[in-house]
Amino acid sequence: MGNSFGRIFRISTFGESHGLGLGVVIDGCPAGLDIDEELIRTEMQRRKPGQSKITTQRKEEDEFRILSGVFEGKSTGTPIGMVIMNTDQKSKDYSHISDKFRPSHADYTYFEKYGVRDYRGGGRSSARETAARVAAGAIAKMMLKHFGISVQAYVSQVGDMKLEKSYHELDLGQTDDNIVRCPDAGMAEKMIGFIDEVRKSRDTVGGVVSCVAKGVPPGLGEPVFDRLHAELGKAMLSINAVKGFEYGSGFEGVKMRGSAHNDAFYKEGDKVKTKTNHSGGIQGGISNGEDIYFNVAFKPVATIMQDQESVNESGEIVTVSGKGRHDPCVVPRAVAIVEAMAALVLADYLLISRTNKL
Amino acid sequence: MGNSFGRIFRISTFGESHGLGLGVVIDGCPAGLDIDEELIRTEMQRRKPGQSKITTQRKEEDEFRILSGVFEGKSTGTPIGMVIMNTDQKSKDYSHISDKFRPSHADYTYFEKYGVRDYRGGGRSSARETAARVAAGAIAKMMLKHFGISVQAYVSQVGDMKLEKSYHELDLGQTDDNIVRCPDAGMAEKMIGFIDEVRKSRDTVGGVVSCVAKGVPPGLGEPVFDRLHAELGKAMLSINAVKGFEYGSGFEGVKMRGSAHNDAFYKEGDKVKTKTNHSGGIQGGISNGEDIYFNVAFKPVATIMQDQESVNESGEIVTVSGKGRHDPCVVPRAVAIVEAMAALVLADYLLISRTNKL
Amino acid sequence: MGNSFGRIFRISTFGESHGLGLGVVIDGCPAGLDIDEELIRTEMQRRKPGQSKITTQRKEEDEFRILSGVFEGKSTGTPIGMVIMNTDQKSKDYSHISDKFRPSHADYTYFEKYGVRDYRGGGRSSARETAARVAAGAIAKMMLKHFGISVQAYVSQVGDMKLEKSYHELDLGQTDDNIVRCPDAGMAEKMIGFIDEVRKSRDTVGGVVSCVAKGVPPGLGEPVFDRLHAELGKAMLSINAVKGFEYGSGFEGVKMRGSAHNDAFYKEGDKVKTKTNHSGGIQGGISNGEDIYFNVAFKPVATIMQDQESVNESGEIVTVSGKGRHDPCVVPRAVAIVEAMAALVLADYLLISRTNKL
Amino acid sequence: MGNSFGRIFRISTFGESHGLGLGVVIDGCPAGLDIDEELIRTEMQRRKPGQSKITTQRKEEDEFRILSGVFEGKSTGTPIGMVIMNTDQKSKDYSHISDKFRPSHADYTYFEKYGVRDYRGGGRSSARETAARVAAGAIAKMMLKHFGISVQAYVSQVGDMKLEKSYHELDLGQTDDNIVRCPDAGMAEKMIGFIDEVRKSRDTVGGVVSCVAKGVPPGLGEPVFDRLHAELGKAMLSINAVKGFEYGSGFEGVKMRGSAHNDAFYKEGDKVKTKTNHSGGIQGGISNGEDIYFNVAFKPVATIMQDQESVNESGEIVTVSGKGRHDPCVVPRAVAIVEAMAALVLADYLLISRTNKL
Repeated sequence: MGNSFGRIFRISTFGESHGLGLGVVIDGCPAGLDIDEELIRTEMQRRKPGQSKITTQRKEEDEFRILSGVFEGKSTGTPIGMVIMNTDQKSKDYSHISDKFRPSHADYTYFEKYGVRDYRGGGRSSARETAARVAAGAIAKMMLKHFGISVQAYVSQVGDMKLEKSYHELDLGQTDDNIVRCPDAGMAEKMIGFIDEVRKSRDTVGGVVSCVAKGVPPGLGEPVFDRLHAELGKAMLSINAVKGFEYGSGFEGVKMRGSAHNDAFYKEGDKVKTKTNHSGGIQGGISNGEDIYFNVAFKPVATIMQDQESVNESGEIVTVSGKGRHDPCVVPRAVAIVEAMAALVLADYLLISRTNKL
Repeated sequence: MGNSFGRIFRISTFGESHGLGLGVVIDGCPAGLDIDEELIRTEMQRRKPGQSKITTQRKEEDEFRILSGVFEGKSTGTPIGMVIMNTDQKSKDYSHISDKFRPSHADYTYFEKYGVRDYRGGGRSSARETAARVAAGAIAKMMLKHFGISVQAYVSQVGDMKLEKSYHELDLGQTDDNIVRCPDAGMAEKMIGFIDEVRKSRDTVGGVVSCVAKGVPPGLGEPVFDRLHAELGKAMLSINAVKGFEYGSGFEGVKMRGSAHNDAFYKEGDKVKTKTNHSGGIQGGISNGEDIYFNVAFKPVATIMQDQESVNESGEIVTVSGKGRHDPCVVPRAVAIVEAMAALVLADYLLISRTNKL
Repeated sequence: MGNSFGRIFRISTFGESHGLGLGVVIDGCPAGLDIDEELIRTEMQRRKPGQSKITTQRKEEDEFRILSGVFEGKSTGTPIGMVIMNTDQKSKDYSHISDKFRPSHADYTYFEKYGVRDYRGGGRSSARETAARVAAGAIAKMMLKHFGISVQAYVSQVGDMKLEKSYHELDLGQTDDNIVRCPDAGMAEKMIGFIDEVRKSRDTVGGVVSCVAKGVPPGLGEPVFDRLHAELGKAMLSINAVKGFEYGSGFEGVKMRGSAHNDAFYKEGDKVKTKTNHSGGIQGGISNGEDIYFNVAFKPVATIMQDQESVNESGEIVTVSGKGRHDPCVVPRAVAIVEAMAALVLADYLLISRTNKL
Repeated sequence: MGNSFGRIFRISTFGESHGLGLGVVIDGCPAGLDIDEELIRTEMQRRKPGQSKITTQRKEEDEFRILSGVFEGKSTGTPIGMVIMNTDQKSKDYSHISDKFRPSHADYTYFEKYGVRDYRGGGRSSARETAARVAAGAIAKMMLKHFGISVQAYVSQVGDMKLEKSYHELDLGQTDDNIVRCPDAGMAEKMIGFIDEVRKSRDTVGGVVSCVAKGVPPGLGEPVFDRLHAELGKAMLSINAVKGFEYGSGFEGVKMRGSAHNDAFYKEGDKVKTKTNHSGGIQGGISNGEDIYFNVAFKPVATIMQDQESVNESGEIVTVSGKGRHDPCVVPRAVAIVEAMAALVLADYLLISRTNKL
């Protein structure tokens, strides 16, 4: 259970870090969508390990194949099945931790839950699974683009280096111009230097990814439990290493007075608009046509290049050594994953909204 | 869509603020649970309006009736249907806003989504709906109690008044000793004074509710999309006025280094424990047996006792006047709702976890 | 689990035969539908016990109340909650069977499944639950009518008295002209006499309800698992006492050759039509615009006015005596239930079909 | 939508007849199950085309690969992804029907529903999809076997040749001893001769597959909508070419009197048993511990080796010629599919039943 996401535009992923392969099935993608495989490739490239000096140097082959659901370049309405083979799934590097519980990893909890576990590279709990999400998210993005909706994420914080500018003051088109994916060149440089320092100290650090969706029409989102921001929140919290989610005014908003926080309505031509947007584009769980924006907090990566004391399956005290090549900070690569998950939620809710009125 | 929550222990709510009544159906409550109606009443009392000078003075009758699913004091495994009649649903107080969009309410978005709307008291978007959740949550709490699990929430922040103590340093048994539901008597007094001031200035203010679940066994939570904290996050974000969710180290954790953030495992008797708990009791989306704790941010209530400019359904500029009796700050009453939603998630995941192993 | 039905237009029922009340929540009814309470009443009247000499003489009050989801006569898109109170739920008549397993009832299986059970009148397993379905189905029918779709069921067989005419040769408008609900007056008379005879012999007999849906546009139904006829089949098999379902050529069709069974396409004006309709209006699980028709087999009612040997919860041999007032044959009242379930499936699939194309 | 089946033990299939490949993802298989790949192979062999003179002579490679969810021979609780590549997916054979609607196929309905379609070999509507079901069903069977449950199907009717013996009088172990899969050697010979004759006349014929599940414990099945037989019915009706489903006494049972139809309870040692089994092992939608048995009606295959008149996408009258190699009767191969779907339902309900009691 728990490996599917969405109601109408629904994905199911499968695959472990070091198994034969992983993949995703998209059920509910509407028929007639032009499928651009190059765009899927681009998005996967943004998530891929080994893309810069501040990400893990590990190599992963992320070559995907679409097995079904696309015919003559168009979606057919039937499930789109995609697989990504693990070309190099040798498990020798993991024998030293096969029965150890790595601190702040899922080793112990999987062991408690299932009794058995694929210890190679974290098995199913590895962030390798997000490759499948990014592939599916790329298709959701194609659908959103068709309806004039864009989703753009960027790094707004690394450690305590926080970009104080709001997204209005940034050119999000510059996000991919640097390896940390912060659209402010000055701050980006500092962040990169900082991450590199952390890496050299064989440690890791956390960060924040911010995301903006533009062009979302009013009326998306379901009342009560499936509020648009609740589903976005769940989508983000389902990404590896995420510890928090806030939208619109977020945690800072609690300090405001209602008189200052309320977003006054006004008319601009035919359109109802709001003067401010503390609501983050969502009121009562339903989009109001303004920009949707939110922040996602990522903890420092649990795998560090240092020895740590722990216990193993037999309850013995053991040392977990930091080996292999891992990310000193996950946010530069997480940008693509945040966008993918946001796109999946919006595509799903767009389809659901077609059933609201008679 | 969107009015149900949970997979096995699943609730569906219905009802508007000023309709004939509201209610909830619980499908999947296991048979054989002792149902204590008094406990449901107690929980609903904690959420009820009019309970103190810092909550709305509006009176609501929250007298519920269990129509089904309970026989001779025990759950039978069949759906538990509960209704709460709205004894006084006259709509005269709302005629002045029948076609107006109140700022930062759901009036405009419901209108865009559905074309028609029940404008009386916000209709379905009213927090009145949470009465049904609290009733259902009380039953989830009974089930959790049977398995030794407790869920306790409290107010940790009002405006910028923030309780700096962690839950370890507090006696959560004192939460209900004061009307703001902050277990630190000194801070509680300050918060109460502050809310009363805000109320007198005809304004509102936000706050934070913190929550702790103790006794949760390891192994609860599903990998990938339905991570335990992702579902808790969704549950919290589905509560009216919530703008953010964080668990464990949360947004502050992003500033830490991995070496400090990682929770080292050790053995205590038979049990695997962690020395710190930045993970908030959840690793890889699955409970590890430590306390689960999280924070929920509530925005300032949108209804203020002041005139505000807005537009109406015809697009004309109108004035929305603050009338009626509303909460200056929602967190004291939200404590019961946060507990209810957390209990519903845990009850559901407890049942799901029975299917993990052969 | 198992008390909800549908994906978009989704119902959840609750309630036992002799509890305080029962009800249904409809989530996903589109906004803007005119709700005709009189039509709900009419449909419930058709299902109601005590309506003629060949149904049970038991009296049930089926007075429903709509608690939510309807405002100023129109659906609002929020959940429609309806309750039907059991005005006379005294349980004294059931004390004699409180620990006995009535043959071919659900007493034993509920006991095995849940450990506890509400033995009064069969509790949740009673066909009283179908009153809630009929109320919900009436609203589905209103929606279908808006789109030009009708659903009509009738009794085509009682015991071995089988109407050999196909629905083409009958005037379905005459179905309710007689108490057995067979649109052929001559056959109806025979059936009524036969049921009356069976009743006098303190026994029961089975029957078949046939159903036709007209005006269903092509394109309804989902491929693979959720084929339109698979969902219709499940809907019918979920009705108390149903033992079989067939659509189009059904079980007889297995004897035919493909060359005779295939429905040849031709053009009638702008429309693609088929010359025959052995497909029953559904090909590959998707409606093709022709009439949808199917048969539903009901077993003889298990409650008979005779003594039967059985065992009780302690495993002792006991005698179950036939008491109370029960239906000698269930099909006359089942007509309304079959229509309700068919309408619910079609309303749901109509909404789903809006998401098929870009 | 519609490409997933089950709640806890849940499968999602993907793939078209002539795409790159097809597959299935099983989410919810409990951890710790021994996975026997040979058994999957055996089951797929039973469904495979080209296995005898009375099935299609078409060759399909059904070589599957398990990509995930199995580690060191055991299920890990994570999704089991399996793919079957279409080694020879050239579409040349289908150009002659690319815009034609084959009679009683899904060509027209897919075209109406989606606007675009993969016309090669019926695309997604092809029975090729059932290969993925059989692979998943084999794993469900392994789980059932662990709990002492068996599922056995066999051919009981071809055209009007009907096996009058009940399953009690047959040795189901002999089902695979002949190519038609009827466990009565004499009848099998006649059926084979008959199918061969039909094939030579370039026509097709229907048939019935019967199925028996033994060892099912009492208590499986959910009340109301998800009755065990309702889900079994849906599962069977979701198989290509199925037109009807009946269980226990089925359509014949309607002719019986309640006094004869009721299954009297008695005690056998510790066990509650029934003297007859007209209930087909299911009462009130829940298993009672007796054998579960049901019949599934298959129509004659729509593809015949004859010219047929039809229309094309432009509405022109066209001739559809019978080409290629197709089954004269589908039931011999359908035996494996019926077993697979039955196993999937039982595995799912077995897991659900763990959540019934406190």
